[in-house]
Amino acid sequence: MIKVAVVGGTGYTGVELLRLLALHPEVSLQVITSRSEAGIRVSDMFPNLRGHVDISFSEPDINVLGKCDLVFFATPNGVAMKMVPELLSLGVKVIDLAADFRLKSSSLWEKWYGEPHACPEMLGKAVYGLPEFNRKEIKESVLVANPGCYPTSVQLGYAPLIKNNLIDVSTLIADCKSGVSGAGRKQSVPFLQAESSESVKAYGVAGHRHNPEITQGLQQLSKTDVNLVFVPHLMPMIRGIHSTLYATLLKTDTDLQALYEKYYANEPFVDVMPAGSHPETRSVKGSNMCRIALSRPNNGNTVIILSVIDNLLKGAAGQAIQNMNIMFGLRESQGLESIAILP
Amino acid sequence: MIKVAVVGGTGYTGVELLRLLALHPEVSLQVITSRSEAGIRVSDMFPNLRGHVDISFSEPDINVLGKCDLVFFATPNGVAMKMVPELLSLGVKVIDLAADFRLKSSSLWEKWYGEPHACPEMLGKAVYGLPEFNRKEIKESVLVANPGCYPTSVQLGYAPLIKNNLIDVSTLIADCKSGVSGAGRKQSVPFLQAESSESVKAYGVAGHRHNPEITQGLQQLSKTDVNLVFVPHLMPMIRGIHSTLYATLLKTDTDLQALYEKYYANEPFVDVMPAGSHPETRSVKGSNMCRIALSRPNNGNTVIILSVIDNLLKGAAGQAIQNMNIMFGLRESQGLESIAILP
Amino acid sequence: MIKVAVVGGTGYTGVELLRLLALHPEVSLQVITSRSEAGIRVSDMFPNLRGHVDISFSEPDINVLGKCDLVFFATPNGVAMKMVPELLSLGVKVIDLAADFRLKSSSLWEKWYGEPHACPEMLGKAVYGLPEFNRKEIKESVLVANPGCYPTSVQLGYAPLIKNNLIDVSTLIADCKSGVSGAGRKQSVPFLQAESSESVKAYGVAGHRHNPEITQGLQQLSKTDVNLVFVPHLMPMIRGIHSTLYATLLKTDTDLQALYEKYYANEPFVDVMPAGSHPETRSVKGSNMCRIALSRPNNGNTVIILSVIDNLLKGAAGQAIQNMNIMFGLRESQGLESIAILP
Amino acid sequence: MIKVAVVGGTGYTGVELLRLLALHPEVSLQVITSRSEAGIRVSDMFPNLRGHVDISFSEPDINVLGKCDLVFFATPNGVAMKMVPELLSLGVKVIDLAADFRLKSSSLWEKWYGEPHACPEMLGKAVYGLPEFNRKEIKESVLVANPGCYPTSVQLGYAPLIKNNLIDVSTLIADCKSGVSGAGRKQSVPFLQAESSESVKAYGVAGHRHNPEITQGLQQLSKTDVNLVFVPHLMPMIRGIHSTLYATLLKTDTDLQALYEKYYANEPFVDVMPAGSHPETRSVKGSNMCRIALSRPNNGNTVIILSVIDNLLKGAAGQAIQNMNIMFGLRESQGLESIAILP
Repeated sequence: MIKVAVVGGTGYTGVELLRLLALHPEVSLQVITSRSEAGIRVSDMFPNLRGHVDISFSEPDINVLGKCDLVFFATPNGVAMKMVPELLSLGVKVIDLAADFRLKSSSLWEKWYGEPHACPEMLGKAVYGLPEFNRKEIKESVLVANPGCYPTSVQLGYAPLIKNNLIDVSTLIADCKSGVSGAGRKQSVPFLQAESSESVKAYGVAGHRHNPEITQGLQQLSKTDVNLVFVPHLMPMIRGIHSTLYATLLKTDTDLQALYEKYYANEPFVDVMPAGSHPETRSVKGSNMCRIALSRPNNGNTVIILSVIDNLLKGAAGQAIQNMNIMFGLRESQGLESIAILP
Repeated sequence: MIKVAVVGGTGYTGVELLRLLALHPEVSLQVITSRSEAGIRVSDMFPNLRGHVDISFSEPDINVLGKCDLVFFATPNGVAMKMVPELLSLGVKVIDLAADFRLKSSSLWEKWYGEPHACPEMLGKAVYGLPEFNRKEIKESVLVANPGCYPTSVQLGYAPLIKNNLIDVSTLIADCKSGVSGAGRKQSVPFLQAESSESVKAYGVAGHRHNPEITQGLQQLSKTDVNLVFVPHLMPMIRGIHSTLYATLLKTDTDLQALYEKYYANEPFVDVMPAGSHPETRSVKGSNMCRIALSRPNNGNTVIILSVIDNLLKGAAGQAIQNMNIMFGLRESQGLESIAILP
Repeated sequence: MIKVAVVGGTGYTGVELLRLLALHPEVSLQVITSRSEAGIRVSDMFPNLRGHVDISFSEPDINVLGKCDLVFFATPNGVAMKMVPELLSLGVKVIDLAADFRLKSSSLWEKWYGEPHACPEMLGKAVYGLPEFNRKEIKESVLVANPGCYPTSVQLGYAPLIKNNLIDVSTLIADCKSGVSGAGRKQSVPFLQAESSESVKAYGVAGHRHNPEITQGLQQLSKTDVNLVFVPHLMPMIRGIHSTLYATLLKTDTDLQALYEKYYANEPFVDVMPAGSHPETRSVKGSNMCRIALSRPNNGNTVIILSVIDNLLKGAAGQAIQNMNIMFGLRESQGLESIAILP
Repeated sequence: MIKVAVVGGTGYTGVELLRLLALHPEVSLQVITSRSEAGIRVSDMFPNLRGHVDISFSEPDINVLGKCDLVFFATPNGVAMKMVPELLSLGVKVIDLAADFRLKSSSLWEKWYGEPHACPEMLGKAVYGLPEFNRKEIKESVLVANPGCYPTSVQLGYAPLIKNNLIDVSTLIADCKSGVSGAGRKQSVPFLQAESSESVKAYGVAGHRHNPEITQGLQQLSKTDVNLVFVPHLMPMIRGIHSTLYATLLKTDTDLQALYEKYYANEPFVDVMPAGSHPETRSVKGSNMCRIALSRPNNGNTVIILSVIDNLLKGAAGQAIQNMNIMFGLRESQGLESIAILP
């Protein structure tokens, strides 16, 4: 049994992580910390966990965390980086669901996250936890930076094309749509149901933190500069991301469908649908799956990739469990076999 | 033109009031106050008002308010009562959309609203602004207490039966369902879309502030003690209240449908539907109408009254405009002719 | 491995059943029939099942069904009763998720379902599959009538009070709220999102088929006539039932909370929450749990029971799996351990 | 008073048209036809119209229609073209809300709508009813082709840039998001709330009928071939279209914000928001407004235009009224002054 702690378990990625951990046969959940909610029973805050998670939130305590095999950080950005070095020195492995270790450049991090990085020397050590890109490195790692939700869907969508130099990476457009749970569980007027339901809007058009994360990942595939226009939109639903990706083909004689099917043939959590399909976000709601479909209208030189995930699963907690399974030598899909709930 | 001020225009009743006032042909909107948002353009906070309301929020100033003919309070409970005496002394009429003047008993007010009433001597002077009950008194009044949303739908639903002594008023049950806009526009986790949508729950089962308000109103009709079990529920939608009212008939030979149709025959904003109808909240969304339908399953001695309103219109801002029209001798439906928006 | 067939797998209870069966470790899914969709791959209709259910719909064939250990009927009312006698004669066990075998009286069935019953002699043989009432009988049964969604939540809510003669069973009021998936997956204007979302309405106020089913069950507990006023309402959400149950206490000195906790102490799928709680339907979404809470406003003689379930799980497919587990001697919660998905 | 008929008043554009006509001071609504619903009171089908529209649906009758000044067609595609020539010959003006007269080429029409055009000789006579493009022609016209919903938002979004030759019209990308009312009011499984809510999907990626309509309009502005990639998406909300438009700038030294503000300075129903704004669809819900905002991330050569409308108003019935006002010499905004309803 892997002894696991969750730091910061009061947000949506936190409760999703707890749900998955509670049912995982190889995990023993030791402690869930929250400074603000210390003393409160987890199941009082999240009644779905009644009968499944029988502990209370507690103050984070390095002595307790240090005895675990693995600590998940489901904290706001900027928290994990202050605790990770000590935990690693105690031999504890870490998966950070926030952004602290996603970018390789500390200056880029500081630019987008608004404060100096607390342990820039760790950025090189951290492995970007997208198993479809870095499975081998994740297996050897003690510090995994769990990818963002948009970046997961966009990178999985573009990867086969970029890896094979089939598109012009200087003119990428990712028009992405996310449910409101992506904004987290925090007091906020714009995400009140009376505000956000029955409406659609773009946000962050001038620039969004996930752009440098995506660009970094795509550049590692392309070995050249990538220019991405990324426009996120808020959708009136709880869960799900739908990325509509546009690219200009450099050559048009490749069988793209066959390429994608082969590229992801052995991936347990990427499902390439028939050409011309329209994947729905609900087809992955509550599951760790990413579904992808390709279209090339009028056989022109624009290719459209549709990529859907559940932002809280493959876009956060599910991918974190997948990374845990890899790091600890378990079956990669253990505890992640659930089927999307429809309707 | 009536010179009008709105105190506290940043909530949902506030923006709805502004929408109605902006289109009302007899109103000149002078000032909209908000301590927290002073200096912000109203249309920056509420982009639907762009091009219609061209002023900014300002600090409340008695010199400015005192020059108006009418001040609406769309403030939290407990604000209006601190300013009303001075405004009245300056000859300004007041319509309070909050609860400060709804209860006749200051001790009852203190019990349910948690603080002593600031001007208990005004409670007797205030008229409860339900036009279907008190039209004549509203016309003469300088201080109108605009009813709560649940109380409007429940009182209109029960009135004909109670007024005619047809039901046992000691066993009333009102099972009410409200959209989330009833909770107001304030930072709050429970009303985030990710929390409140796709779920239903009861709240305040142990006791809710609207119970004494409803009971007071029904007792005035019945001239005897009323015992009401009132259970409000939160619905995953923005607007609308659906009250399902249960009562035991004292005698079963009355033509209830005819009774209701006659009782409300001349009311512009109460629509008695055919017997056995199921009014939908969307049939009144965006309108000031209350739709009511009656059923008596198996011709038994239980009568069921279904009563629907838009909580922000007939349950708040629309009714306030209706009261204004009455107070100032205008046509009662002026500025309230809109038809519910469907779908 | 239990060899299982699903007759009529194209509705919402059907797809939910398939989801549960696909993950159940003791089940081998043999065949899924649908006359209208024969030849279509199940996963083309329900993309969430891609990679999990790898067969196509087929015409129902008694030779194929007759070789199974268990046949689930997820068909419209009136279908199962025409096939059940032959299946039973072949030694196949049956769980009917429709209403064909729920009522003990064939005349009552005919009254509410509009046609003569095809095999009235089977009505006495069928066991009403509410495990909390009839666990022992279910274990011995070859034909289980899976309860309706409303009836499950209402009967579990009232049972401890009625079984102990604590309430007046002649004045019961059940005000129930259901998500739209309860209406099934069929072409229909009233359940279009543009019609049913953002609105609430009652329906079937004059009489609903679930009333005789509930009444029959409660009468078995009370050993006396029960009179129930039952008003179902349509909620703008996909899944979930919230039953608000009202009753008049015959005596007020019983510790009701202790009574309920003891009554359901050993039930894996009934969770009695602390007194005065407000269970949310989302706390059971995607799980087989029923959560119940009690209130007695002002310590009066009205008791309010709040009972929530997922209509497609404890109200349909989940309960069917629970019944299967009991009938085949498996652990009752096998394949039903999932935790409600929140948010 | 203009004598008006509505042919096919049972869909969403129909009911919206009736709502607007019922309140329009210069209109006398004579007849509403529907073959399938003839004899049914309009207000029984659409209870929001109770008390406002007091007639029943009737069979279409050329003798009745021929006595009107104006006939609106709110019918499925392919109906109006069979009746228009006769109506015009009787001196009746026509506004068709369907697609029959939107395309100038009958072969293009046949390709996309799947049948030969019934009166191709009328295609040249019809004026495309986008007032911001063709106000003068509309004023003189007897036959107006009311634009589609997506085409309205996309063309208004791109127009100033294309008219001024500022973008490369061979690489346009329009990623559009629509609420479900765009699919109409018809029996349909995919648009059931249990299917379409809580999910997002693209559709028609291989080709959508609105692409040739948009392309035709943009080509009239550009005087050159336009290549548009158009991907519509279904949003889980009732009303609203959000078009996210991408284009490559040919030169980057133009003040685009000033350009747009000037271009639309005198338009009553186009609101250019401050640069970098994120217009929300709810800011136009229930109003005839189109709100547009511009962004140029990193001052690069990609310009992003965000354009939102209410698909049933500026995208259908509202624009039809606007066209009527122009055709009959009324004030263009008469009957269209409503403010978007928020929340």
